[in-house]
Amino acid sequence: MRVGFYQYKPLFGKVSKNLAKVCNALSKIEADLIVLPELAFTGYYFADRKEVMHYAEEVSNSICIDSLTALCREKNFYLVSGFTERHKDKCFNSSVLIGPQGLIHLYRKLHLFNTEKNCFDEGDIPLQVNAVMDSKIGMMVCYDWVFAEVSRKLALQGADIICHPSNLVLSYCQQVMLTRSLENRVFSITSNRTGVEKRPHGDLKFTGKSQLVAPNGDLLFRATTQKESLHVIDIDPAYARDKSLTALDNVFDDRRPQYY
Amino acid sequence: MRVGFYQYKPLFGKVSKNLAKVCNALSKIEADLIVLPELAFTGYYFADRKEVMHYAEEVSNSICIDSLTALCREKNFYLVSGFTERHKDKCFNSSVLIGPQGLIHLYRKLHLFNTEKNCFDEGDIPLQVNAVMDSKIGMMVCYDWVFAEVSRKLALQGADIICHPSNLVLSYCQQVMLTRSLENRVFSITSNRTGVEKRPHGDLKFTGKSQLVAPNGDLLFRATTQKESLHVIDIDPAYARDKSLTALDNVFDDRRPQYY
Repeated sequence: MRVGFYQYKPLFGKVSKNLAKVCNALSKIEADLIVLPELAFTGYYFADRKEVMHYAEEVSNSICIDSLTALCREKNFYLVSGFTERHKDKCFNSSVLIGPQGLIHLYRKLHLFNTEKNCFDEGDIPLQVNAVMDSKIGMMVCYDWVFAEVSRKLALQGADIICHPSNLVLSYCQQVMLTRSLENRVFSITSNRTGVEKRPHGDLKFTGKSQLVAPNGDLLFRATTQKESLHVIDIDPAYARDKSLTALDNVFDDRRPQYY
Repeated sequence: MRVGFYQYKPLFGKVSKNLAKVCNALSKIEADLIVLPELAFTGYYFADRKEVMHYAEEVSNSICIDSLTALCREKNFYLVSGFTERHKDKCFNSSVLIGPQGLIHLYRKLHLFNTEKNCFDEGDIPLQVNAVMDSKIGMMVCYDWVFAEVSRKLALQGADIICHPSNLVLSYCQQVMLTRSLENRVFSITSNRTGVEKRPHGDLKFTGKSQLVAPNGDLLFRATTQKESLHVIDIDPAYARDKSLTALDNVFDDRRPQYY
């Protein structure tokens, strides 16, 4: 299975331009699954909730999702993407799993980071995995990395690949995700953005270093901090179904949940 | 609070000699809490359950615990140590918290590693923290590092310092423990052993690199792979009670346990 990420710099508020850039870049590659960053088309650093509502889309009426679905159909691949979601009077920092058939699954970020707490509603959809080709896909978003429970929950539900759209501003996550893959014996794909987002209320600098990690915790590929990077590798998702750390040790069978 | 570890090479089956070595080394230092390796006095690589039973002691009738208690009284400090425990017809890979008043708490390793599965019974005591001076101490043993639930459980119970007697043979743990400290904002002290243990049934090489980690995931000190090392540093346990990652993010308050 050919999986990867597209690390780039969305321009704040330039949804059509960002969408065109992504569709153009992805139209040139051969892949089965590509992960895009958090809030991939609107940009990240919203002033307030009102500004989120201005740019957010309903999943049932979304130019972004329609365009990505068309791309998936044309390329016969799957996408995981951050999505600025409006739902009635609420707005969520969401992630969508999209295939040739359209929207497959919606995840709403459970753990809001920093000023997101002032702009978004907390996620309200249980963690869930979905079948994509011969693999099972779990989604989490950015700051969810701190909470081992998220990737654990997805892995226990059978996730082979954890897709992790991100807009990281701290320096910890990339190293921690090696642990998340190792402790659950799953692949992880962290798709981060690059660049500085300058807004009237301040600037945010993103850390790049999007990465692909193997179930044994090995770093398969890591992008640089600043450069845009569209990177695809071949993996065997079945490798994530072997939870053995050694011949006698299995990180799932060895659990003692009655003591947790 | 002055805390540290003693990384050394126990000689298999030479309990008195190992005990004398530890007591001699620790008699020369000023500290409040020292962590010793897993199975600190018997050695690690048992042939079978019968051999464990031969060397194991009951906590209520233990030369090791009596000697360590005497040392704690003399030095007015606390020790966490791996302990080869016999209890009726069972045997456990345990850890003991000892102070001037004697045995304070017993922990029995919940996750047995590799051939330990053939030699020991699985731990049967709930994870618990104990007050030591102005801090709260949690104990876990070696392979427990894989299971994020262990350090999480201890941290949620208020552990400031996770004491982690180990006999590590794989290469992952030291890096993962940086994550364990960071995700829980606790200090961790991993006390590993050095050297190769040669037994008739095979050799095991231990990885050393005992370490002290801060609640922000910073490595405060790491020993080398092979050299014995008795290292003590000053820490403020109260630092572990601030669970803030940033001014707006708190790794405990931000949890969404209803979704885990």
